[in-house]
Amino acid sequence: MSDHVYKKIELVGSSPTSIEEAVQNALARAQQTIRNMRWFEVTETRGHIEDGKVNHWQVTVKVGFTLDQ
Amino acid sequence: MSDHVYKKIELVGSSPTSIEEAVQNALARAQQTIRNMRWFEVTETRGHIEDGKVNHWQVTVKVGFTLDQ
Amino acid sequence: MSDHVYKKIELVGSSPTSIEEAVQNALARAQQTIRNMRWFEVTETRGHIEDGKVNHWQVTVKVGFTLDQ
Amino acid sequence: MSDHVYKKIELVGSSPTSIEEAVQNALARAQQTIRNMRWFEVTETRGHIEDGKVNHWQVTVKVGFTLDQ
Amino acid sequence: MSDHVYKKIELVGSSPTSIEEAVQNALARAQQTIRNMRWFEVTETRGHIEDGKVNHWQVTVKVGFTLDQ
Amino acid sequence: MSDHVYKKIELVGSSPTSIEEAVQNALARAQQTIRNMRWFEVTETRGHIEDGKVNHWQVTVKVGFTLDQ
Amino acid sequence: MSDHVYKKIELVGSSPTSIEEAVQNALARAQQTIRNMRWFEVTETRGHIEDGKVNHWQVTVKVGFTLDQ
Amino acid sequence: MSDHVYKKIELVGSSPTSIEEAVQNALARAQQTIRNMRWFEVTETRGHIEDGKVNHWQVTVKVGFTLDQ
Amino acid sequence: MSDHVYKKIELVGSSPTSIEEAVQNALARAQQTIRNMRWFEVTETRGHIEDGKVNHWQVTVKVGFTLDQ
Amino acid sequence: MSDHVYKKIELVGSSPTSIEEAVQNALARAQQTIRNMRWFEVTETRGHIEDGKVNHWQVTVKVGFTLDQ
Amino acid sequence: MSDHVYKKIELVGSSPTSIEEAVQNALARAQQTIRNMRWFEVTETRGHIEDGKVNHWQVTVKVGFTLDQ
Amino acid sequence: MSDHVYKKIELVGSSPTSIEEAVQNALARAQQTIRNMRWFEVTETRGHIEDGKVNHWQVTVKVGFTLDQ
Repeated sequence: MSDHVYKKIELVGSSPTSIEEAVQNALARAQQTIRNMRWFEVTETRGHIEDGKVNHWQVTVKVGFTLDQ
Repeated sequence: MSDHVYKKIELVGSSPTSIEEAVQNALARAQQTIRNMRWFEVTETRGHIEDGKVNHWQVTVKVGFTLDQ
Repeated sequence: MSDHVYKKIELVGSSPTSIEEAVQNALARAQQTIRNMRWFEVTETRGHIEDGKVNHWQVTVKVGFTLDQ
Repeated sequence: MSDHVYKKIELVGSSPTSIEEAVQNALARAQQTIRNMRWFEVTETRGHIEDGKVNHWQVTVKVGFTLDQ
Repeated sequence: MSDHVYKKIELVGSSPTSIEEAVQNALARAQQTIRNMRWFEVTETRGHIEDGKVNHWQVTVKVGFTLDQ
Repeated sequence: MSDHVYKKIELVGSSPTSIEEAVQNALARAQQTIRNMRWFEVTETRGHIEDGKVNHWQVTVKVGFTLDQ
Repeated sequence: MSDHVYKKIELVGSSPTSIEEAVQNALARAQQTIRNMRWFEVTETRGHIEDGKVNHWQVTVKVGFTLDQ
Repeated sequence: MSDHVYKKIELVGSSPTSIEEAVQNALARAQQTIRNMRWFEVTETRGHIEDGKVNHWQVTVKVGFTLDQ
Repeated sequence: MSDHVYKKIELVGSSPTSIEEAVQNALARAQQTIRNMRWFEVTETRGHIEDGKVNHWQVTVKVGFTLDQ
Repeated sequence: MSDHVYKKIELVGSSPTSIEEAVQNALARAQQTIRNMRWFEVTETRGHIEDGKVNHWQVTVKVGFTLDQ
Repeated sequence: MSDHVYKKIELVGSSPTSIEEAVQNALARAQQTIRNMRWFEVTETRGHIEDGKVNHWQVTVKVGFTLDQ
Repeated sequence: MSDHVYKKIELVGSSPTSIEEAVQNALARAQQTIRNMRWFEVTETRGHIEDGKVNHWQVTVKVGFTLDQ
């Protein structure tokens, strides 16, 4: 593992329900085009409000994946 | 939307259950006196411990709302 | 309470399910050897990915506890 | 001046034109209800994009004003 | 305590003497209009200089207080 | 809007004239290959000096755009 | 001195009087079990409020001490 | 260029008009005594308010210049 | 140079030997697909431990490269 | 005041007694060679420990002073 | 691996030669009492100067290790 | 040592070889005009790239030195 190179991209996922689901939604979308995602780091948690309630959560994650040699 | 002015206030909500509920509780209380809340940003997540377990979560949010013209 | 001294330690808890459970797991383990835990502060939220999904959450917390006099 | 107490509030001003105008717009709105504004600090500069161009700038400022004794 | 909501405001207190007195002066002024102040966090310490000496200290604090239900 | 996933990329735009123009130049270039840019966040403002004057501004922005489903 | 290894721990000291005394109290407690404390770094200054006055200061310090070889 | 040593100094420039002009004013003053200024980094943007309007902008820059060998 | 637009990407390089080699490895991999890399910024230095020794260094860099017009 | 240019330098003052005296000592020394010091900002508070007690405080301040035109 | 709990401690290693050796020295000392060290994060790099040269490097690392169940 | 006043300056050293050499080069240049340099703190590590390789490292250090009384 000591000779891998990784790339990190930054995504924002949304969910009306939870922080966890917002992250899962971001990963599900990224999975369509990126192979070998390995880890993520949450860098920002925010959301939109309607009628005094959380309408949806918006969670920013950095996602690291292995670059093929 | 380009001529709006927003004010951001900082609240701390509590919940025995989850980070999400702590945010919702903060918004529910703010809703009593503030109109037009638009978005929030989580700036701190902490909590109190009793008997080695999370007794309640305390989540700090900045809440942005539109100032009436 | 004004004459207490507290120590803060840094733990990383894991959970396949949620941020909250990862924190609870870290506290449960710490409870085996530390008395008088009082509060925690989340300092980092990240996780491992397998097959494009969150395999487990890893949440770093600082935990404060009272030092016996 | 050495015995003054100041309060700082956080505002977001918008402008289609410039960062400076976004700040001026925030101050103009705050001036309607706050006396004795003394200084500001820009804490965030962002904006919305439409058709690949800046549609409007959104600048967050902390504004300090003197509290009457 | 687990269902409280708190608001945090940001104040700057001044004192010719000490950091502690600057904080106390900020709280004394806030006490005129705010009930139930619970804690503070020092976020910035600065001051003005005259004739090569500290003329007065200016200390910024965030003050948390309970919102009545 | 609650089910969108966004990607954020980091660009540096240049301008001999202003911070605003440096941002516009970065967006104009990105527009050639990216659809659906939605917002930007200024993360760094710097520049090069020649003969004691600003030769050009260099402004780093994070740009968020919608990922097609 | 060039081959020493140090450990840093994080403590919170309290005092009704001053920031300095809160630090001294934290060190006095740590001195009961730690030899060779060498330096400290203040990382957070906060406190509790009662009746609109500082009830006690709470100062977080990182304390570095030499590990015996 | 690989063997240069640079020094960075921190200046605050003022302007009633714009952030850009405040930076230019700081550089113009520094140019009187410093040769070989190469780049700058904006580290803080703030200003003074009079009658509810920006009276002047105050922009802090770090300026890098080559040290003669 | 004043009209260039740059893109910054984030990579993590690994090396059993040194921080410098970890950066070089990240650049060597990126060079396979990216032209015109101009500068890098180290944003994080960490590593894995086996048997009480550094097994490999992991260094995160942001890499800036010129976008062709 | 709107056309002034300021320079900021970084000093570390020491005192066996208090944070305030450490700052005053730094300013007293700077006053020997710098005219027109206007303000300071505390950026770091640390100190040396001997026999489990604070031996002296070390406080880092940025000091701003007017550059003569 | 998803149910592990880790503890992170903060160490400062020294070396007259390099950043890497300073980290290795910190780990070698920690290895005497800690089992199962897994990763480290460099949080600060500094050093002492004598006769205008680096006398020794001082590198602060956070070290994560598995807590036995 | 408790009554010393130190000044900190910020330098950028370069080296084609290593981070350590870049720091040494900065100190060697500073040594020509500054007596009594005591410590340094690395605040930024970056570098220039040519042909997909590190052409030279650029390391920013803050250097502290004793001010003569």
